[in-house]
Amino acid sequence: MRHWVLAHRPDGLPKGSDFRLERTSLPAPKDGEALIAVDFVSVDPGMRSRLSGDSYAAALGLGETVESAGVGHVVESRSARLPEGATVMGGFGWTTHAISDGRGIQVLDPAIFSGRITPTASIGVLGIPGLTAYFGLTDLGRPKAGETLLVSSAAGPVGATAVQIGKKLGLTVIGIAGGAAKTSYVRDDLKADAAIDYRAESDLAAAIKRAAPDGVDIYFDNVGGEQLDAAILNLKQGGRIVVSGQVSEYNAAAPRGIRWVTPFITKRLRMEGLVVYDYRKRFGEAQAAIAGWINDGSLSYREEIVAGFERLPEAFAGLFRGENFGRRLVRI
Amino acid sequence: MRHWVLAHRPDGLPKGSDFRLERTSLPAPKDGEALIAVDFVSVDPGMRSRLSGDSYAAALGLGETVESAGVGHVVESRSARLPEGATVMGGFGWTTHAISDGRGIQVLDPAIFSGRITPTASIGVLGIPGLTAYFGLTDLGRPKAGETLLVSSAAGPVGATAVQIGKKLGLTVIGIAGGAAKTSYVRDDLKADAAIDYRAESDLAAAIKRAAPDGVDIYFDNVGGEQLDAAILNLKQGGRIVVSGQVSEYNAAAPRGIRWVTPFITKRLRMEGLVVYDYRKRFGEAQAAIAGWINDGSLSYREEIVAGFERLPEAFAGLFRGENFGRRLVRI
Repeated sequence: MRHWVLAHRPDGLPKGSDFRLERTSLPAPKDGEALIAVDFVSVDPGMRSRLSGDSYAAALGLGETVESAGVGHVVESRSARLPEGATVMGGFGWTTHAISDGRGIQVLDPAIFSGRITPTASIGVLGIPGLTAYFGLTDLGRPKAGETLLVSSAAGPVGATAVQIGKKLGLTVIGIAGGAAKTSYVRDDLKADAAIDYRAESDLAAAIKRAAPDGVDIYFDNVGGEQLDAAILNLKQGGRIVVSGQVSEYNAAAPRGIRWVTPFITKRLRMEGLVVYDYRKRFGEAQAAIAGWINDGSLSYREEIVAGFERLPEAFAGLFRGENFGRRLVRI
Repeated sequence: MRHWVLAHRPDGLPKGSDFRLERTSLPAPKDGEALIAVDFVSVDPGMRSRLSGDSYAAALGLGETVESAGVGHVVESRSARLPEGATVMGGFGWTTHAISDGRGIQVLDPAIFSGRITPTASIGVLGIPGLTAYFGLTDLGRPKAGETLLVSSAAGPVGATAVQIGKKLGLTVIGIAGGAAKTSYVRDDLKADAAIDYRAESDLAAAIKRAAPDGVDIYFDNVGGEQLDAAILNLKQGGRIVVSGQVSEYNAAAPRGIRWVTPFITKRLRMEGLVVYDYRKRFGEAQAAIAGWINDGSLSYREEIVAGFERLPEAFAGLFRGENFGRRLVRI
């Protein structure tokens, strides 16, 4: 089996040499355990902070296998909970194989994960990204039909879900994304009312104002920094900012942050961050709702498959150049 | 009568030449009106933003009398609502006299405004500064007994009230102020558990950590900028930031803002601003509570009287050098 470990803490943008590929012999499951072959590993910008050690979870140690969600199948089992052949989801990490006693592992129900909903959705639209969009928007966003929602990184796995749920809630939705392909996707496929290509705009605040002349009620932020500042300038009285991600900040030697705090007073703004694990007890409710929308064709998700375990570090680093389009997965 | 008008929009720190003293003849009250002689005018850092025109209220026009709260007495009346001799509070502005039909004017009840509670308290601890502390802390702060509260500008009129209400609510309270005299006042007179002199600290975040090793639950912010950043680094999981004022930002050509937004995610922080006028319906409840605490000796307030109407612009400018100690009033 092979696995990627952290070799150096990244200085700025992660690069291939920050990780090291290691080989160990395939372990045999003990009584109560199963051997899982990992088929897909997700790469996620939020992982970046654990590599530096300034995250809510403890920092990853040097020499430890990089953590991530994955989907696999049971190849050999001595556990009744993990039958051979079952498709499973769990935090396997950047590894080709894993031994598990079933804790923290979900056996995917073929009645749900088939047809429109592939097993990889369990680590995407039905996993942490989709749940972050669901709870961030519906709980912290406090949306009311008729309000205006602005979403950054709107073509990404969190943002795209937030855009579509926003439309279901009767909001006017404006998405920000980078490049013509992503903005077309946000407008044409996700059905946002407007999409802004931040790469084509010299004054993002002015572009938001053109798209939302009466102002924005909710800003669902995956990016931070300049995009967050531009949003603050366009928020209405009583506007809410959902801090879901800050991808523009993760690789910065010193954080940029925001310039505009005084409008928090004059416009009575609220800014609040979330870690989706706090909503664990309500995951089932959200997953049922999202699965229903996928099955009736009213919510779509997009995955981008990178083939080859050896390409994991590069697939991860590319997230910070904005090159992924949809949830990026590496197929082993 | 004399009044100060805005002559130039200030560039950075306000200075005397930004204002111009004008004289007009004393008007006579018409039927239903009264002539009021203003005795005290308050100067307040929050006024600064109206001079530049980026506030929630419309910008003050050039040549217009500078607005502010004041206390005066009725010298000539043709209004039943404003009896001659009555002590009154209102937004008279930087003027020696005013004509009023009673709208927006409060006739002060001698049963309350006597003894420990002077009429000037109506524009201080019982006015906007005290009410901002009361609603900011009790509503947005969501305090629970046993939690830790950090207050910036803790010797100022808003901060000093927040410190004392915090102690009443069973909080551990840490105040930040500038200089030995103010920090002694915060600790010895206001009974804060600890006081930090930000001028004496090269690393404010480290100083807060020494005073609150287990972290801060609520940060009541009157200052913004570097002090807000230092507070964010010390907030606990689920910490709340009440944005009451941003005095470090008002004169800046470009706002500094904050660097630390990523902790909003990892620590699930909430930051919210208030404009106290939104609580107008509950002013009576808050004023009764505060007056009760003053009368039983458990809440104190401090005023600093500057004598002379001609010194108004300089008294205002000095606020931004941190030279005032308590609520600054100008006696006419």
